[in-house]
Amino acid sequence: MSEPEPLAAETGAEALVRTLIGAGVDTCFANPGTSEMHFVAALDRIPGIRCVLGLQENVVTGMADGYFRVTRRPAATLLHCGPGYANGIANLHNARRAGSGILNIVGDHAIPHVAHDSPLTADVDALVGATSDWHAFGTDPSRIGSDAARGLAAAGSGNGRIASLVLPADVSWGRGGAAALPVAPDAPRPPDPLAIGRAAQALRSGHRAMILLGTAAVTENLHPLLAGLARATGAELIGSPMISFLPRGRGRLALPTVAYPVDDAIRQLAPFDIVILVGCQPPVGFFLYPGRPSLMHRADAEVITLSRGDQDAAAALRALAEELGAAPAAIPELAGDVPSVSGSITPEGFAATVARLLPENAIVVNEALTLGSGFGAVMPRAAPVDWLTVTGGAIGGGIPLATGAAVGARSMGRPDRRVVTLQADGSAAYTVQALWTQARERLPVTTLLLNNRAYAILLGEYTRVGAQPGQTARDMMSLDRPPIDWVALAQGFGVEAEPATTIEDLESALTKSLARDGPTLIDVRFAQG
Amino acid sequence: MSEPEPLAAETGAEALVRTLIGAGVDTCFANPGTSEMHFVAALDRIPGIRCVLGLQENVVTGMADGYFRVTRRPAATLLHCGPGYANGIANLHNARRAGSGILNIVGDHAIPHVAHDSPLTADVDALVGATSDWHAFGTDPSRIGSDAARGLAAAGSGNGRIASLVLPADVSWGRGGAAALPVAPDAPRPPDPLAIGRAAQALRSGHRAMILLGTAAVTENLHPLLAGLARATGAELIGSPMISFLPRGRGRLALPTVAYPVDDAIRQLAPFDIVILVGCQPPVGFFLYPGRPSLMHRADAEVITLSRGDQDAAAALRALAEELGAAPAAIPELAGDVPSVSGSITPEGFAATVARLLPENAIVVNEALTLGSGFGAVMPRAAPVDWLTVTGGAIGGGIPLATGAAVGARSMGRPDRRVVTLQADGSAAYTVQALWTQARERLPVTTLLLNNRAYAILLGEYTRVGAQPGQTARDMMSLDRPPIDWVALAQGFGVEAEPATTIEDLESALTKSLARDGPTLIDVRFAQG
Repeated sequence: MSEPEPLAAETGAEALVRTLIGAGVDTCFANPGTSEMHFVAALDRIPGIRCVLGLQENVVTGMADGYFRVTRRPAATLLHCGPGYANGIANLHNARRAGSGILNIVGDHAIPHVAHDSPLTADVDALVGATSDWHAFGTDPSRIGSDAARGLAAAGSGNGRIASLVLPADVSWGRGGAAALPVAPDAPRPPDPLAIGRAAQALRSGHRAMILLGTAAVTENLHPLLAGLARATGAELIGSPMISFLPRGRGRLALPTVAYPVDDAIRQLAPFDIVILVGCQPPVGFFLYPGRPSLMHRADAEVITLSRGDQDAAAALRALAEELGAAPAAIPELAGDVPSVSGSITPEGFAATVARLLPENAIVVNEALTLGSGFGAVMPRAAPVDWLTVTGGAIGGGIPLATGAAVGARSMGRPDRRVVTLQADGSAAYTVQALWTQARERLPVTTLLLNNRAYAILLGEYTRVGAQPGQTARDMMSLDRPPIDWVALAQGFGVEAEPATTIEDLESALTKSLARDGPTLIDVRFAQG
Repeated sequence: MSEPEPLAAETGAEALVRTLIGAGVDTCFANPGTSEMHFVAALDRIPGIRCVLGLQENVVTGMADGYFRVTRRPAATLLHCGPGYANGIANLHNARRAGSGILNIVGDHAIPHVAHDSPLTADVDALVGATSDWHAFGTDPSRIGSDAARGLAAAGSGNGRIASLVLPADVSWGRGGAAALPVAPDAPRPPDPLAIGRAAQALRSGHRAMILLGTAAVTENLHPLLAGLARATGAELIGSPMISFLPRGRGRLALPTVAYPVDDAIRQLAPFDIVILVGCQPPVGFFLYPGRPSLMHRADAEVITLSRGDQDAAAALRALAEELGAAPAAIPELAGDVPSVSGSITPEGFAATVARLLPENAIVVNEALTLGSGFGAVMPRAAPVDWLTVTGGAIGGGIPLATGAAVGARSMGRPDRRVVTLQADGSAAYTVQALWTQARERLPVTTLLLNNRAYAILLGEYTRVGAQPGQTARDMMSLDRPPIDWVALAQGFGVEAEPATTIEDLESALTKSLARDGPTLIDVRFAQG
């Protein structure tokens, strides 16, 4: 195949749109501005890409992250100039940590206009450079197609990357556009035989070992292999907190993850002499605290990287199993159902109730660190679901991620898949606007708003400073003056909503919600500890 | 005076807080995270700074902009790591264009933790470098005080700048902190006598001249001088669209600004042979369009910079008036009151009704480009007010700016000053969370939500592309599917709200609102054009 010839009559924007469609892009998450009007016009003229509007750019980038996690295909985003891109950086950061592939089209000023420093001019190059794995600056309509093809290849390479293409308005409107053929992304690199040998030797040594697993190491098809490895070697399987897509529930591995509180994590990993990393980093704490280490494993533990983030984790695990003669094993089934509870809403009762009602093949989005802790105990008895955690530590990912996941499921021909969001209130306030897109697209998303009227995680962090919070600190961590009325906010954005103050309320509201076509928010009012 | 000695027992955070208080900082707009807990603890222990919480960082930085415009004193912000800073970049961009002084304290990981690339690690240096006029990276508790003093001096220098100080957690918690004495900011540079001579010569030449005025050239005390210059020379006074603080109403100059639509602006400036710039850039269009120029003045016009942005505009105007022998002149008073209207809400009727009811010394915040056009005709008969426009072109500035302006007025001992926000709906959706801070701080802010259910400005821009919008384009510019219920959103954030569908409704709701202590939102439903 050779590149299509430039079409004299075609604009850069049209060439870009045709390139995206040719490479299989079917969705563009967008918040356009003036400099993107020619691109929008091209989307009008050339059918094939569905545009999903977000009311703010961090909604847009978070949706693209959710879409990739469900489809494994890069979505495009359309953003407006440096400040518009900047609005989306936090969820791009989360997407980058998740290993999600995204191609950002960043509309910018026409090239001759930049020198005049008009009000919206910003250093867009520096911004995309600091926050993308790949970036390019479009300079010519005849080349913008191949720029986009390379960008999409970068987004799809390895285990997913952030690519950003700056699209000046005059490149967009200029004639002589040339669409380009798709460029093949780089596959993950093959595993390293030496690393496999070292890991096998360590696992045979009789020392106590853990295998820390990243996203590419926990796809559903690997679960029997992982169970077999654990049985054959006695090693413990632990999930990285940055796993972006984890199959959970009956028939899947019950995988503990490294605890968030640093002292809990240190205790959790203290028994292990050997730490084997599969597609993830060493177990680093989110933050460093005085008198604590950065890494959660024992300082004298031997750390072996079986497979780096850019390598093929599945191939590495298969080679390791072969080396050790470990056969796949059945996942043990736990007897009994998730217990039924009642009364006021505690983290444990909440988790049990939700886990019991989760429909098969649901997608669970988790941004509920402090209140979501009860799920580990009950998920092995729940229906099989896919579990998407907000990675990267930038809060405000949950509602956009859920929205994009539902769009992705629809794009895969599975509009029936229910999305359930476990959403802490402090984080929800960042990107609550994403509810509007859920209503607009009539997506089957149930947002469980975990309402404790506080930045609860910060109150925990503050006590680690070693002081009781005074008035200033309490004021900066509580959200109860005034309380936020989440039911009103959801309704304001067009989403049906109701409160739940008891487990019975929650059960009734969740059951109703799961039977509805469109989105719902349930304001889950936790018992005050 | 010599620097205070380092106190062995003091943390870096405490030294930083004492430095800020010593330099007169009384307000910190904040959205803290884990890495800022020691700074929050220091704010608890050392009284003197009031913390104002925002639910998202673009709210925080927009509030700091509003605070500076009203007080002319830099506020501090407290932001959390690279992604938290990134969330605030758009309104920092607007603040930078406004010439507002802000010192961002950007909490970050402890220095030894960065090498481990924990989830929230980002290239914070690149982000602050790309978007701040001054930045520094704190490395030692004994130096963090002097870093902050230099940062505050940078923020207060010239006509106001963006300064960012990265505060690693271990510099915050480390002992040996040393507070520093205030550093004097650089005053604006003196005017250039040659430029004054050139401008005077051009104004005497008989050619048709306009004087384009930036923020520093339109302070209230300069209005009689400006009126005198116009009378003596026949030059027209025109305001830059980037004026961040404009005294308007009876007794103040009625200053037209350069029109936003590019063809209107070109027509507006076509008569002028001479363009004199006072504390602003040449009149550049927001965007470049095919077949249109970047600059709005005639290509053959002579452009003379009387005073650059970093120079003393007032001194330059006084020197120019002296050179020309122009005496200050009284501002002409227009006879009659703002007319009273009724019926459905048009842009003109809206402007007349609001202008008639504006209380004296109100602060008007304007983020209503498409619907706010009627005010030019009526403001000369309105009460004297200060007019703050969202500069920089990044939308989502209005509600945060109004919130910070009210905090600033309170900090100046004027908690009675009413803030009235003219807020377009599309932009409001970006940072609607700022309403919560208005409720929390019980600020006397009236938000007039100008509801046309669309990104109306984009519909106008799209037609300039030369095509009728198709379904995709219409979908990306309309906000009516579903309609946003602004009354519900405001109430959800704790702000009283009601709709207005007629001028009579608006008059009644606005009158009630102006008499209340706390915030209100009025959902102003414009007649569909």
